[in-house]
Amino acid sequence: MAITVVGSVAFDTVETPAGRYERQLAGAATYFSLAASFFTDVRVIAVVGEDFGPEQEAVFKARNIDTTGIERAAGKSFFWEGSYLENLNEAKTHNTELNVFATFNPQIPDSYRDSEFLFLANIDPVLQRRVREQMPDVKLVAGDTMNYWIKDHKPALLEVLKGLDLLLINDTEARMLAGNDNLLQAARAVMTMGPRMLVVKHGEYGATLFERAAPEAHRTECFRAPALPLEEVVDPTGAGDSFAGGFFGYLASQAELTPAVFRRAMFYGSVMGSFACERFGTERLQQLTRAEIDERFKIFRELTHLD
Amino acid sequence: MAITVVGSVAFDTVETPAGRYERQLAGAATYFSLAASFFTDVRVIAVVGEDFGPEQEAVFKARNIDTTGIERAAGKSFFWEGSYLENLNEAKTHNTELNVFATFNPQIPDSYRDSEFLFLANIDPVLQRRVREQMPDVKLVAGDTMNYWIKDHKPALLEVLKGLDLLLINDTEARMLAGNDNLLQAARAVMTMGPRMLVVKHGEYGATLFERAAPEAHRTECFRAPALPLEEVVDPTGAGDSFAGGFFGYLASQAELTPAVFRRAMFYGSVMGSFACERFGTERLQQLTRAEIDERFKIFRELTHLD
Repeated sequence: MAITVVGSVAFDTVETPAGRYERQLAGAATYFSLAASFFTDVRVIAVVGEDFGPEQEAVFKARNIDTTGIERAAGKSFFWEGSYLENLNEAKTHNTELNVFATFNPQIPDSYRDSEFLFLANIDPVLQRRVREQMPDVKLVAGDTMNYWIKDHKPALLEVLKGLDLLLINDTEARMLAGNDNLLQAARAVMTMGPRMLVVKHGEYGATLFERAAPEAHRTECFRAPALPLEEVVDPTGAGDSFAGGFFGYLASQAELTPAVFRRAMFYGSVMGSFACERFGTERLQQLTRAEIDERFKIFRELTHLD
Repeated sequence: MAITVVGSVAFDTVETPAGRYERQLAGAATYFSLAASFFTDVRVIAVVGEDFGPEQEAVFKARNIDTTGIERAAGKSFFWEGSYLENLNEAKTHNTELNVFATFNPQIPDSYRDSEFLFLANIDPVLQRRVREQMPDVKLVAGDTMNYWIKDHKPALLEVLKGLDLLLINDTEARMLAGNDNLLQAARAVMTMGPRMLVVKHGEYGATLFERAAPEAHRTECFRAPALPLEEVVDPTGAGDSFAGGFFGYLASQAELTPAVFRRAMFYGSVMGSFACERFGTERLQQLTRAEIDERFKIFRELTHLD
């Protein structure tokens, strides 16, 4: 089943201990789409500027990603500049230019309307909500956000959360959103805000899926997927979005959303996140094959399973 | 098979967000012994002062732990005071008094000499080495250490590492010891210093077992055990030692040390670490039953296994 994703399609300038690149194709919706495209059809809603040309378009086309909903506007695309020189787990932002995203009013192409899965990638919650409202009948809606929106745009974000089945955020964000340092208590608090499921990403330590239990159950269901200890983390940019793409892409590829399917989705998320870190920007995701994904899935199983 | 453990038997004063206790029985060898005692026979080598009385002795006796090797000396027992008010993952040390440990010269009781497993709990590496040299023929030797010894007593520690099959340390310590921020590379570097296996503890994110691969293998073997998201971390003191006790205790209880046994040992380590955090000091380990341990082992399996 197809996924519609709204989020940033952008250019990044990034410096890591392994090197630096300037104004390369990036953005949450880009990483998400590339990762999800190995599992199912993906349709993107975004806005780009005049700097988005055939070279960038070709990256999506090579993975059969539908770009009908990528609007072209006068000016420059969203731009982010950051580095990971002191800490590979946390980006230091040097510059963010919203550019064409500042006045974006997302429209859903008619050809996207039968999408059964909707992903609201990290972006202004006002835009996430507008897309959500235009697609009220999807089967599953998941979203991502970041510390900036939690800190300075909380009312708008809380409106978005009401419309989510599942939220993906990292540890710090979960604790910040809930105002609680205990992860399990924070997860429970977030799951009273709308989403009945929460994926908390732990960077190099993997991720945990929490599910709101029935009131009579005495414990919250959780499932923990590992991350793979990597020889070299070349560039962590987009690892979280790639996790989301693998996770949600696998869900959308399955006929039934059973607990076992969610568990496998967590593993596919970790698999895609691990690939994303191995090369600069989207390079590894562009070159990947399904056989490599399945091979790494097996490695993740060996990494965590007793027998 | 029996384990001999050398390490601190001490008194702690600890403050956590959940409360405070004064001069309660603690120490690495105490937590380790209590955790390991659910799996196999444990024999302790340590020194205590006149403040160690029948009440403390009874804690060991209740778990059938052999205290023949706990020497009584004039003066006070090792004392540590710390808090976890800002960060439950990292203790802030307020006071450390070596007391009777300052002049300790460990002796191995004859009745300990047939121990096939030796654990060198966190203590001055000079003492670890003296015990190791007196027990040259054990089947498996593992050890623990801490940032203090890595930073200020590295030559003595490196001598200890040469005599270890397995080292258990946390992330920060592994990176510090190897002088390398990449965990996989750090693990490989540590495994050139003596131990062919390394368990890196990640606090609330679990732990990873690394094993030195044959030169022809292109990747280092690893296995990741989770930690359980806990409703409340009452007191993290001793969680790492309890992990070590569960891990090594389970190994010592098995006839053969197969890869599958090491995997299960990692889970038992995580299980014992999770119990240790649930109450102040050694309280939870004192009250625990084997049935509770096996029940939690099942929860850990559900937490991580796909099917």
